[in-house]
Formats: sequence, structure tokens, C-alpha cells
Amino acid sequence: MERVYNFAAGPSTMPVEALETAAREMLSFGESGMSVMEMSHRSKAYQEIFSETEALVRDLMHIPESYAVLFLQGGATGQFAAVAMNLLTGSGKADYVDTGVFAHNALVEAGKYGTARTVASSREEGYRRIPALSREMFDPEADYCYITTNNTIYGTRYSQIPDTGAVPLVADMSSNILSQPYDVEKFGAIFAGAQKNIGPAGFALVVVRRDLLGRQMACTPQILNWKLMDEKGSMLNTPPTYAIYMAGLCMKWLKKQGGVEGIYPVNCEKAQILYDYLDQSKLFKAVADKDSRSIMNVTFRTGNEDLDAEFVKAATKQGLVSLKGHRSTGGMRASIYNAMPIEGVRALRDFMNKFEMEH
Amino acid sequence: MERVYNFAAGPSTMPVEALETAAREMLSFGESGMSVMEMSHRSKAYQEIFSETEALVRDLMHIPESYAVLFLQGGATGQFAAVAMNLLTGSGKADYVDTGVFAHNALVEAGKYGTARTVASSREEGYRRIPALSREMFDPEADYCYITTNNTIYGTRYSQIPDTGAVPLVADMSSNILSQPYDVEKFGAIFAGAQKNIGPAGFALVVVRRDLLGRQMACTPQILNWKLMDEKGSMLNTPPTYAIYMAGLCMKWLKKQGGVEGIYPVNCEKAQILYDYLDQSKLFKAVADKDSRSIMNVTFRTGNEDLDAEFVKAATKQGLVSLKGHRSTGGMRASIYNAMPIEGVRALRDFMNKFEMEH
Repeated sequence: MERVYNFAAGPSTMPVEALETAAREMLSFGESGMSVMEMSHRSKAYQEIFSETEALVRDLMHIPESYAVLFLQGGATGQFAAVAMNLLTGSGKADYVDTGVFAHNALVEAGKYGTARTVASSREEGYRRIPALSREMFDPEADYCYITTNNTIYGTRYSQIPDTGAVPLVADMSSNILSQPYDVEKFGAIFAGAQKNIGPAGFALVVVRRDLLGRQMACTPQILNWKLMDEKGSMLNTPPTYAIYMAGLCMKWLKKQGGVEGIYPVNCEKAQILYDYLDQSKLFKAVADKDSRSIMNVTFRTGNEDLDAEFVKAATKQGLVSLKGHRSTGGMRASIYNAMPIEGVRALRDFMNKFEMEH
Repeated sequence: MERVYNFAAGPSTMPVEALETAAREMLSFGESGMSVMEMSHRSKAYQEIFSETEALVRDLMHIPESYAVLFLQGGATGQFAAVAMNLLTGSGKADYVDTGVFAHNALVEAGKYGTARTVASSREEGYRRIPALSREMFDPEADYCYITTNNTIYGTRYSQIPDTGAVPLVADMSSNILSQPYDVEKFGAIFAGAQKNIGPAGFALVVVRRDLLGRQMACTPQILNWKLMDEKGSMLNTPPTYAIYMAGLCMKWLKKQGGVEGIYPVNCEKAQILYDYLDQSKLFKAVADKDSRSIMNVTFRTGNEDLDAEFVKAATKQGLVSLKGHRSTGGMRASIYNAMPIEGVRALRDFMNKFEMEH
């Protein structure tokens, strides 16, 4: 079976090279005589895989030793609670920027554990843009300020990281981590579900400044306790061993592409191909405001729901799959994460053009 | 590379057939043109994989519709907190039987959320046996009573499920789920980390009586909220899609072995081969008391630490690997889960015999 171009928002397309290595090593990793899936997480062989993966994360994101790198189960949704449980213990107040359903869910979840305030929101505008922010808008007494750097469903991205002064900035980077360079030291904590640019679904990557550790609430479950997990090297209990191994294979591939600095211009070019086409199209329109456009998720529509559905169906037949927009927004969405080759993006653009000619 | 016999306690050996299928389908599952790892969890193709896996769990364990079947991230350790957060809201009291480090950890974790009492403990005896229990020992006002049906580290197993009257019985079955028939209706809730008899590490299977749902504490994180997860079909957020697919492949293999009823006599025979040898050996001694012996984890030692280490090393050279006991107990442990073929157990017995002759 020929592989398709898979524009799914996550879980999503992965580097073929990583999948080929996984297939080859499935019955025996190296000289071990067993699959990585079958290895004790305490074994020397697995410890090496794990350490190498952590080193790759540190290398690709330029993370200093003053930050912990954790691999935790429960996805980004688990971290919605964990952020509050681990940090909301000073003033008990946190500031959230509401730029989408996931940002909003994070705020609601934090509200279980303290006071989560909405600093700014684009909810009334269908989350089509990132609201303008200034330092004065943030509460200097807040335990943290929270943003979602890229909003998967709406196809928006912060073009600038807001200045929150001395208040630690926490960022959900689930849908654009490793896609562009970020200065980790601007953040108190970063987290991301793995299933977009990191690897397969099954864990969240957490990067947190170590001086922020140890503030957790008494009710924090052990598996969400950042301090404890840092002390245990993410192995308080059995980690999702295979998902972490796969993430390592994907990051090795990324390293070969020149790392985050190498892939960023490629990602920009991929996005530009689609936005350039959309901006001149008479049939398709880009959804996100120009200055808030994501380079990972490109949202667009015809304005006619039946025609949208016809397009998605026709594209699928051409091996351009999972282009249907999120069920809450309709329209189309092309998720073009790191592993989506530029050829896939060109094929989509060409097909959109052909479809436009015919309609 | 030839495959070894892997006696690791978890993650642990898996059916070769499941691994071969996974390798074959790695770059394209069926006609999908993508790996299962790359599939949206909302896609039709993945929904079918997921539904089939849940149906296999229900079929193999004979679970009625009055019980929810959940696939949750965070492993069994996550459920140590979840059990209390979801159930400890009536009298706020729970009864725990302390039969090992994991039972003890579960009790400590529950203590964050209410009063967790130790009903009985074999801690002082190095957890070599399951304490005798009677209905009178349990508090009839407790929200639940908690047991660990099989204790991985010590190689012990309950030969009988205790009678707790009307109080719901909660069981951690991490290391012997699917290895022998249990009457699910005797339990209020059952949970198990996946990485022994279910599939790869990365989730916990939770089976819970639906009339017990909806009692969770306000501080329960969404990802540990059983009621919410049941409503969302375990897909509140992205589940660990690939680990669930692999579990499905392993359960299909189990089904071919005649299901739990078919594998149980094989498991008994495998354990008997080792215990029969140990009971007549002059060099090796079984650790667990006879009436508490596990059929999944067989613990033994020579009484001489250096000799234990020599044995483990010599066995490894023969392709009999991961026989070292848990770091807290020393000695040896042979974990012989469903996927360990009887040939592997015989090879171990023969090697022990040879080693004994030479020492």
C-alpha cells in the first residue's frame, strides 16, 4: 500500500525513516534479542534509549541544566491540572490568555485549584486571532501566566511571546514545539502532548525551571508531581517506554534536518505555499487573521459547507487525507508538522488549484 | 539476532505473533497508507481498532455492560490516586491489605485524600505470604476495601478473593490480570498497568461498576475522573493510541490460546515446573510461602548473594535474561506471564539444574 499525505492534527504524520527503523527493530533491538516494548525500564539497554532521548530534547531545544525535562503520562490535558497543582500555591491566582478551546479547558481545570483569570480572549471572534497583550494586563501577583503558543483548531500562533515581567510564563506548546526556535529561558514551564511534533501519543513533555519545583499542593497525585518526577528521572513508575523510544527516533531525524533551526525555514516555506495560494484564491479563504497565522495548522474554507465536504472527499481520493476541520469549527485544516514533506504541501496546493478550476 | 527468553517483571515478553504483525503494519495499516501511530484517534480506522480492543477485554474477562472499561494514562500508580479520588467520598474511610510495596504505596497515596487503614500486613515477614483475612476484619462503613491480587516483587498471590460483604472490593491486578479466570462481579473496581499481561507500557486498564461512578472529589484531575472518562469513551483527550493497538494484538493472540480459560492451565503448568524443581533443589529455595505462591512471578534464591549474581550472569549468557530479583529484595525472580512459552520455562529449569550440578 502506497503511503498517503496525512494532514491530521495529531496523532499525525511521522518521519518514514523513524517508522522504518521501528519496524526493523521490532523483534530485536540491536543485540538485545527483544523488542524495546519488552525491555524492563530499569534495564541498561532501555536506560540508554531513555537518556539519549532526553539528551536529544535538551540539544534540540537548547535547554539548560537549570530546567528539568520530564516525560509524563496523561497528555497535555493531564498537564492542565498539573500546572495548577504544581504552581498555584503562592497567591493562588493565575492569568490565562484564552485563545482556543484548549486554552479555555486549561483555565477551567486550573479553576478547580485556585483563581484562574482570563486576561484576554478572542473567543467572541471564533478564536481567529491572538489578542493584543501588554505587560500591564498581567497581574504581578499571579503565580504564573499561561499561554498556548499555537492553537491547533483555529490555526493561530503567537507571533511574539508576551512579556509578563517577573511572573513565570507557562506555555502549552503541544502543536508547535520543535517547529521554530524558542528561548526556553523566557519560560517558567513549557509542556506539550507528544502526538504532533515529538512522536506518538502517550505522554507529555514537560520542561520546567527547577527553582519552581517543590510548590505542589498536598492533593497532587504522584504521577503529576513535577518535583517528585524530576527526582525520579520520570521513572517513579513505568514510563511509556515505547512512545519515548519512538520520540527519540523522530528527534534523531529532526537532528539530521539541522534541528529546530534547520526545520524552521522549511516550515515557513511550507506554510507560505498554502497561504500564498489562499490569499489569491477566489474559492478558498484562510480563516485565521494574517498576523496570527500558524505555520503548523492552516485553516481554510470555501464558505459553503457542502463544497467543503466535497473538497475533503475529493482530496482523500487523491491520497491527501484528514483535511476535515475540527468538528467544532467545520471547514478544512491542513496540519503540516515537521514530518510533512514539502512535496505533500505542494501536492495539496496543486489539488486545491485544480479543484478551484473545476468549481 | 536470535530472540532471548525474557523473564522481566514488566515491561515484559510479548507474543512474537503480535510483534510480527506490528512490524508488518508499521508503515501502513491495512489500506490506510499510514501507521496506526499516525492515525487521528477520531478517525474511523482508529475507532475500529479501539472498539475491537475494548470488545476483546470484555470478551476475555466476561465483563458485563454494567461495568465500564477504561484505558487511562498514568499506569497503576496513577490509579493509586484515582481509586481514592473517585471512591473515597462517603465515609472517607478505606481498608487496605498490605501485601507488598505497591499495596503500601497505594495506601500512602490514598491517605492524601482520606483515611486509609491497614487491615492486615505481611510487611514484617518480608511480604512472603498473603495474610489470613476474614469478613469481620473489614470495616462495613468503608467506602471500599483494597487488595493487590498478585505481588510482583515477592511472587505472592491471593489463593482466594476475600469476602468484604457489601463493601466494594477494589483490586490492583497489574501482574496477574488475564492470567486466570476471575469473576468480575465480585469486584467494585479492577485496574492493571498494561505492561505485563495486557500489552506495552503506557496505560492502565480500569474496569469499574458503573453504579460506583460519579462520586469523585472536586479536586480530581479530568484525566483521572472515571465518570468523565466513561462518558467520553476514554477519549476525553488523545489516548495512547499505539499502546492500545498493541494490546489488541496481544489479546487476539490470547483469544487464540483459548482465552483466559485456555491459558490458565498452561500458566499453572509453567509455574509448577519451577516450583517442583525448587522444592527438591538443594541449592535454590523458593521465597514465597507455599499457599501464597504466584503463578506469574516465581521468586527464589540460593541464600548466597554472590552465587545469586553468578547464576544471573551465567543464565544471561544462555539467553535466559532479566532474572535478577527486584532491587529491594535481591535473589532471583522469573516472571512467566502469558506470553512466556513453556519452552522458556523448561529451558530455565534445565539450566538451574545444570547450574546446581556444577555448584
